[in-house]
Amino acid sequence: MIFDVLTLFPEMFNALNYSIIGRAQEQKLITINLYNIRNYTTNKHKKVDDYPYGGGAGMVMQAEPIYNCVDDIKETYGYKPYTVFLTPRGKRYDQELAKELSNRKHIMLICGHYEGIDERIMPLVDLEISIGDFVLTGGELASMIIIDSVSRLVPGVLSTNVSFENESFYNGLLEYPQYTRPREFRGMKVPEVLLSGNHKDIDEWRRYQSLKLTYIKRPDLLKNAELTKEDLRMLNMIKKEIEMEKEM
Amino acid sequence: MIFDVLTLFPEMFNALNYSIIGRAQEQKLITINLYNIRNYTTNKHKKVDDYPYGGGAGMVMQAEPIYNCVDDIKETYGYKPYTVFLTPRGKRYDQELAKELSNRKHIMLICGHYEGIDERIMPLVDLEISIGDFVLTGGELASMIIIDSVSRLVPGVLSTNVSFENESFYNGLLEYPQYTRPREFRGMKVPEVLLSGNHKDIDEWRRYQSLKLTYIKRPDLLKNAELTKEDLRMLNMIKKEIEMEKEM
Repeated sequence: MIFDVLTLFPEMFNALNYSIIGRAQEQKLITINLYNIRNYTTNKHKKVDDYPYGGGAGMVMQAEPIYNCVDDIKETYGYKPYTVFLTPRGKRYDQELAKELSNRKHIMLICGHYEGIDERIMPLVDLEISIGDFVLTGGELASMIIIDSVSRLVPGVLSTNVSFENESFYNGLLEYPQYTRPREFRGMKVPEVLLSGNHKDIDEWRRYQSLKLTYIKRPDLLKNAELTKEDLRMLNMIKKEIEMEKEM
Repeated sequence: MIFDVLTLFPEMFNALNYSIIGRAQEQKLITINLYNIRNYTTNKHKKVDDYPYGGGAGMVMQAEPIYNCVDDIKETYGYKPYTVFLTPRGKRYDQELAKELSNRKHIMLICGHYEGIDERIMPLVDLEISIGDFVLTGGELASMIIIDSVSRLVPGVLSTNVSFENESFYNGLLEYPQYTRPREFRGMKVPEVLLSGNHKDIDEWRRYQSLKLTYIKRPDLLKNAELTKEDLRMLNMIKKEIEMEKEM
C-alpha cells in the first residue's frame, strides 16, 4: 500500500519509523512518500502562505504549491491517488473507515497547517476526515494516526494471531483486562481464573469483563455490538452486580 | 507546563520538535520529558513484556518497569503528576477536555503498546482518555495529539490574535472557508465579498458559510452551539437554499 503525504513538516513522519509501522515499511508492505509542499512554490522565498482575503488573524496556505505537487504526483503514477484531507469538518474517523481505506492501494494525504488552506484545493479532495473534535497545530499528527491504523489492517503487517486478537475491538466491545507476570505484584494478585488453565472459564471471565467494562465505560457501544443470548444473560448479571455495589 | 511521557519509543516524540510546539519547547512554555520504560526493567535482557495470563496472542506490558519509572518521577518532584493513560476504554477526548487539561501544571502520560498493559497499573492512573474508536499500534501518537492540542491552550504558545481566531471552533461551529492570493487560480475566483473591504458584509458572509458548513457536515454541533436570533434567521435561509438546490 502506498501513502503519499503532502506536508510542510516531512520530518515529523519519522515517528512512523518505529515498531510495527517501521517494520511494515522495511518489509515494503507499506510505502510512505513524503512531499515537502515548500519545494513546490514558484516564488523566490519559498513562501507557502499568505494573508486571508477579507481579513482576520493567521495565515492561509496557498493553493498553488499544493496543485503543483499533485500535478507532479499525477505525472509519476499516471493518475491521482485517492485524496484525503484532514479537517475538523470531515467525516469522523473510526475503525470502520480505517477498514474502508485499507481496501485501497494508494492514498494521498494533504496536511493543512496555520489557519487553514485556500478553499480552492477542494476539487482535489475525495474525502475529508476529522479524527475528533479538538484543535491541532496541523494535519500531520492526524495523518499519522490514519497511516498507523490503516497500515495495521494491511495483510502481513500484523501477525495473523495478533490481528485475530484485535477482532475483539471490531466486534464492538472494549477489551478485557490483561495480566502478565509476576502473579503477585506490590500486593496485587492476578485473578485466580486466569491461572486455572480452564479455557472455558477463562473465556467466560474475559467475555464477562469485556461486557462489564463496555457497560460501565461505553454503553453506547452495546447498541451496535453483536450480542449472543449468553451475552445478554451476562449483561443482566452485570447490571445486578453494579446495583448491589451501589447499595453497599 | 510539564509533560512527563512514559514510552517504549521516545524517539517518536521528535515529531513535536517542529512548528508551534517546537517553538513552545524552545521558549520553555512547555517541557516534554521522555522516559524510556525499557530503562526501568530490573532483568538482564531489558524485557518489558511477557505472555498474557490465561493465554491469547500478543504480549502484555509488565507493571513493574512502569511502577519503577513512576517511583523515580515521584522522587524527583515530591509528588505524582496527574496521570493520563491512553486507552480505547477512556473518556472521549475533545476540546473541552483539552481545556480542562490545560489548566493543570503537570501531566504524566503513559503510552501502552503491544496487546496492552498489565491491569495492575490502574492504581497509578487518574484519567483514562480515548482519542477515538480506532485501533492504534500504541499510545504514542495519541499522547502527541494530547500534548499538541493542550499546549496550544497554554498562554503564550499561540499569539493572542491566532488564539482568538480559533475561538470560532470553541463556539461550536465549523470554520468558514478561507482564501488567500491569487484572486484567480486555475479559473477559480475568490468570492467577491471578501475583496469588497466591507467588514460587515464579510462577517455576515463568513457566519453564513460557517452555519451552512456546520448544518451540512455536522448538524449535531448546532444543538450545543450558542446561536443568536440572526443565526437562526440565517439557518432558515440555509435550509431553504438547500431545498431549492435539491429541487433543481
